[in-house]
Amino acid sequence: MVKSVRVGLAGFGTVGSGTFNILTRNGLEIARRVGRSIEVTQIGARRDNPNCDTSNYDMTRDIFDVAKNPNIDILVELIGGTTVAKELVLLAIENGKHVVTANKALIAEHGNEIFAAANRKGVSVLYEAAVAGGIPIIKALREGLAANRIEWIAGIINGTGNFILTEMQEKGREFSDVLSEAQALGYAEADPSFDVEGIDAAHKLAIISSIAFGIPLQFDSVYTEGISQITPADIEYADQLGYRIKHLGMTRKSENGIELRVHPTLISKNRLIANVNGVMNAVLVKGDAVGPTLYYGAGAGDEATGSAVVADIVDLARSLDGNPDQNVPSLGFVKTEDTSILPIDLIYTCYYLRIEVEERPGVLAEITKILSEQNISIEAVLQKETHKKGRLIPIIILTHRVLEKDMNKAITKIQALDEVGEEITRIRLEYLDAD
Amino acid sequence: MVKSVRVGLAGFGTVGSGTFNILTRNGLEIARRVGRSIEVTQIGARRDNPNCDTSNYDMTRDIFDVAKNPNIDILVELIGGTTVAKELVLLAIENGKHVVTANKALIAEHGNEIFAAANRKGVSVLYEAAVAGGIPIIKALREGLAANRIEWIAGIINGTGNFILTEMQEKGREFSDVLSEAQALGYAEADPSFDVEGIDAAHKLAIISSIAFGIPLQFDSVYTEGISQITPADIEYADQLGYRIKHLGMTRKSENGIELRVHPTLISKNRLIANVNGVMNAVLVKGDAVGPTLYYGAGAGDEATGSAVVADIVDLARSLDGNPDQNVPSLGFVKTEDTSILPIDLIYTCYYLRIEVEERPGVLAEITKILSEQNISIEAVLQKETHKKGRLIPIIILTHRVLEKDMNKAITKIQALDEVGEEITRIRLEYLDAD
Repeated sequence: MVKSVRVGLAGFGTVGSGTFNILTRNGLEIARRVGRSIEVTQIGARRDNPNCDTSNYDMTRDIFDVAKNPNIDILVELIGGTTVAKELVLLAIENGKHVVTANKALIAEHGNEIFAAANRKGVSVLYEAAVAGGIPIIKALREGLAANRIEWIAGIINGTGNFILTEMQEKGREFSDVLSEAQALGYAEADPSFDVEGIDAAHKLAIISSIAFGIPLQFDSVYTEGISQITPADIEYADQLGYRIKHLGMTRKSENGIELRVHPTLISKNRLIANVNGVMNAVLVKGDAVGPTLYYGAGAGDEATGSAVVADIVDLARSLDGNPDQNVPSLGFVKTEDTSILPIDLIYTCYYLRIEVEERPGVLAEITKILSEQNISIEAVLQKETHKKGRLIPIIILTHRVLEKDMNKAITKIQALDEVGEEITRIRLEYLDAD
Repeated sequence: MVKSVRVGLAGFGTVGSGTFNILTRNGLEIARRVGRSIEVTQIGARRDNPNCDTSNYDMTRDIFDVAKNPNIDILVELIGGTTVAKELVLLAIENGKHVVTANKALIAEHGNEIFAAANRKGVSVLYEAAVAGGIPIIKALREGLAANRIEWIAGIINGTGNFILTEMQEKGREFSDVLSEAQALGYAEADPSFDVEGIDAAHKLAIISSIAFGIPLQFDSVYTEGISQITPADIEYADQLGYRIKHLGMTRKSENGIELRVHPTLISKNRLIANVNGVMNAVLVKGDAVGPTLYYGAGAGDEATGSAVVADIVDLARSLDGNPDQNVPSLGFVKTEDTSILPIDLIYTCYYLRIEVEERPGVLAEITKILSEQNISIEAVLQKETHKKGRLIPIIILTHRVLEKDMNKAITKIQALDEVGEEITRIRLEYLDAD
């Protein structure tokens, strides 16, 4: 009989309980896959979890016990945050344990240091659950698509944001109204800024960009815009033009460098990813050989995220005591290459503009003249009528690809026109075709 | 310097050239991922391929040379068919080589024997390219979703069939008309029965069912219906009721056994998989922990399929000379379990029925009475008017879930009614929700 793989759980909240319940409920099926059983040897948490019966388990209130426990092969870090979690993970590595974590902030902000420490000790740090919950996107990028030069990745990687935009789309509701509901439903945190301002998505994007291109983690260089400025009117106009608005993480490699950006984005309704709704996540990857592939599933939740945690445990269990040189490298590449991240000013994208103007002859001509002077060409214009005198009317313009800094200049000039009221709304647009 | 991994290609058609071109074009990037270079040591093929410059390569006209070549670590079987290919693969295994193949028929029909031989010799046989081309679905099932008990899988796994149905849907064209075009475009073979009669999909379904449930390959037990009977009228009626018709491979595990079936299927337009169009493939997997996840991409093509072949080569290269006990088992489970495949008679599905009747009072009542006697309840009825006297009019009925053999009895009785002309059209319907 092959000996069991001994797992220690540090953190016993939502994902911790999901992981525990999967390992206990599906233990026999998993052992049939792995050829040995996986045993939860110790659980470290400040309190018990009412969703789990842990009466037969070794519980400790000090999570550092788990990292020091000599009878544990794999430490599973599920406490979240970046301070104690980092200390815990480094201690586990120092003690020769493999680590599995669902902590996107920890990997995005301290991954380079953690992976280097793991490398020195010959242990693995796996983090499938850190991006897009239960979707095995890390494995797809590091292994399944390893033949490809990745050209770009576009992901809906924050379920809360996608839930809010979907509700706004389907019911014409205001952002703040849906956000309150999401908070009541438990989809959004009391402080929702991590989700709706794009920080959570930026953490995940930094990780997938690094494993796509083999570059060090560079969370600080992610350009980030949230969705709190999106209005039902913009969603409606986009819809009339054939687009949905999604909060997208985009990373792309070009000759000049790598783009790393999170922002609301118009996407043609015909694209599969534009039809990913509610709290679901999806990641669209363009490889030079395979073309576009898409990975869809639940981006959060106890057992969805636990599924990814356990998949990492299974990977480690299948290769435990193997030659560490044969592990898949942490970022999918044996050596990362420093490649500069392009500042947002130097990025080309298409644009949706909503310009609120007083209805006077020649306004549209003035606007298009300014755009033309900045070499911005127009794909479509939608001018709405108003029947109320004195009210501003919206002009919607879709542009072709334009350099960000040229767009900034144009917007400054258009904003300065006498006829233009309110602040101009600008939302990027991506075709996401096989270009 | 670590030594190169030496690959021999046997077969040099579409997928062979795609594999060769990826390995040469992306060689540096791949070496950066693997930590060693991958070298094409020999190519066995009856003829050269004009898409590849092989002037610096060792070519042989006898593919068996490749299986016997002592300087080769991995044999890549891309000749297709099940006779010579089987002999070749078994010879390579006998000579201690790992094998990568894109051959779905070979694995579906002879996989049990081939995997047993590989197991005895301690080598791996990988086959990611055999299902859904470039989509890493085998890896997702064997590794990424290893935490889950898989409940069911539904896949659009034949690009030609999906292309035909999409064209019929979008342009109202007849099956035979689109098939001719697909043949002219090179999507469909001169003998299209493998694609349109569902045999190709059945091969792939047999494979994913085995790795989902850990059962031996049982291609002979797949129930298979093609799409040649689907009419533009059925597609239009389905559309009016909110559905698309897709050619779906379905496998599901229930208490009574495992379902294995390929047939046209109505799917709600709201499901992501119903919006997978053209030659693209998609596989929807329901796991007990992760919920539904979907994998989408090109199911065929030289470099799309080559991408999966090279991913398998990369997997082998990363673990070459490792302990064979640490390989992921061929079917994802250390031991397969014999589980009976349910005969189609004992399967429950919903149904779409199109019944062409003479317009007389009471016809619908007679039909619904027969359905009710067989315990078949009705979800929706669509009765079309006709303005031409003497012409049959279609009655469309959607049923709730019904046992196949009860449906057969009901159809026999309805068909026998005096007012019913033509053969009744019956198409299964699947909700594919998280049930």
